[in-house]
Amino acid sequence: MPKVSEAHREERRSQITAGARRAFAAHGYHGATVEVLEREIGLSRGAIFSYFPTKLDLFVALAQEDQGRLLALWLEHGYEAVVRHVVEDDPEWLGVYLDASRMLRTDPGLRERWRTLNPDAQERLEARFRELQEAGLIRTDLPMETTGRFLGVVFDGLAVQQAARFGAPIDADGTIELLRSALAPK
Amino acid sequence: MPKVSEAHREERRSQITAGARRAFAAHGYHGATVEVLEREIGLSRGAIFSYFPTKLDLFVALAQEDQGRLLALWLEHGYEAVVRHVVEDDPEWLGVYLDASRMLRTDPGLRERWRTLNPDAQERLEARFRELQEAGLIRTDLPMETTGRFLGVVFDGLAVQQAARFGAPIDADGTIELLRSALAPK
Repeated sequence: MPKVSEAHREERRSQITAGARRAFAAHGYHGATVEVLEREIGLSRGAIFSYFPTKLDLFVALAQEDQGRLLALWLEHGYEAVVRHVVEDDPEWLGVYLDASRMLRTDPGLRERWRTLNPDAQERLEARFRELQEAGLIRTDLPMETTGRFLGVVFDGLAVQQAARFGAPIDADGTIELLRSALAPK
Repeated sequence: MPKVSEAHREERRSQITAGARRAFAAHGYHGATVEVLEREIGLSRGAIFSYFPTKLDLFVALAQEDQGRLLALWLEHGYEAVVRHVVEDDPEWLGVYLDASRMLRTDPGLRERWRTLNPDAQERLEARFRELQEAGLIRTDLPMETTGRFLGVVFDGLAVQQAARFGAPIDADGTIELLRSALAPK
């Protein structure tokens, strides 16, 4: 009965990624040791590593899930929805991403994998960007790399402030209004 | 001769902060052990800790130096100068700040010290902001907390991307142009 077995594998995989997410959020990437992962996931290292050969593979799988979700949100509901999502996201989990920025700088293998997490993401975002430019909603006097990068900078900055939980809550509506003004055609 | 002794103390203090900056940049906050700090600074732990009682005190002193420098830059040359500075800053050192965001969330003592690093900074920035609003250079239709926070978000986001060194270099001029549009009076 291969179908049951497939469903079982899928369920196991979800159990592993959900537990790993909790473990990384609570202890950071480096603090989530194999013992911590076993405890939080409720499976032995043998079982876990038959799905994900290394801890890094497990982390990359979680990043891929997240990126895919944010991409879908952006394509379906616009960057405004991404701002709202980041402002409401779990600060502990966002902190794991900030840990990862050091790893990204120093690990060429991870950089390469990061680039190809969602291979068609860049292309789909650029197509959407061009549509918005043609509809007169986004300025065309700056290169798309600059305007697109600016959105990425703002998302990362929101993640830092949310991860630090420092100061008052972020005003999502006001932030979206500022972004609209930044991107509006001149 | 207290004057010589004062100069000597000041020189020692600079030797310690410069070495600590290199140690934190290369190993991260947690990776910069007492042994690493001794080696990089070139002084014994006894000598170091007579100036800074704990590793956290040493880190807070560095953060205070940085904040003071950025504040002066902002007040004298505007937020545009801060953007240029962050885009050109040492990615390794910026990574240390990202480490600190987890510490900020979980350590109430550090949060309190962070808030008072440069006690009059907030007040001086707000005064400058009001001047720019009165001169018709910054919008007044959003609360100052929202516009000021947005600048902080962009600086943090630039720091993340610079720390990760992922993708092409950031277009500082384009980023400044987008910020001007975001903040311009409507």
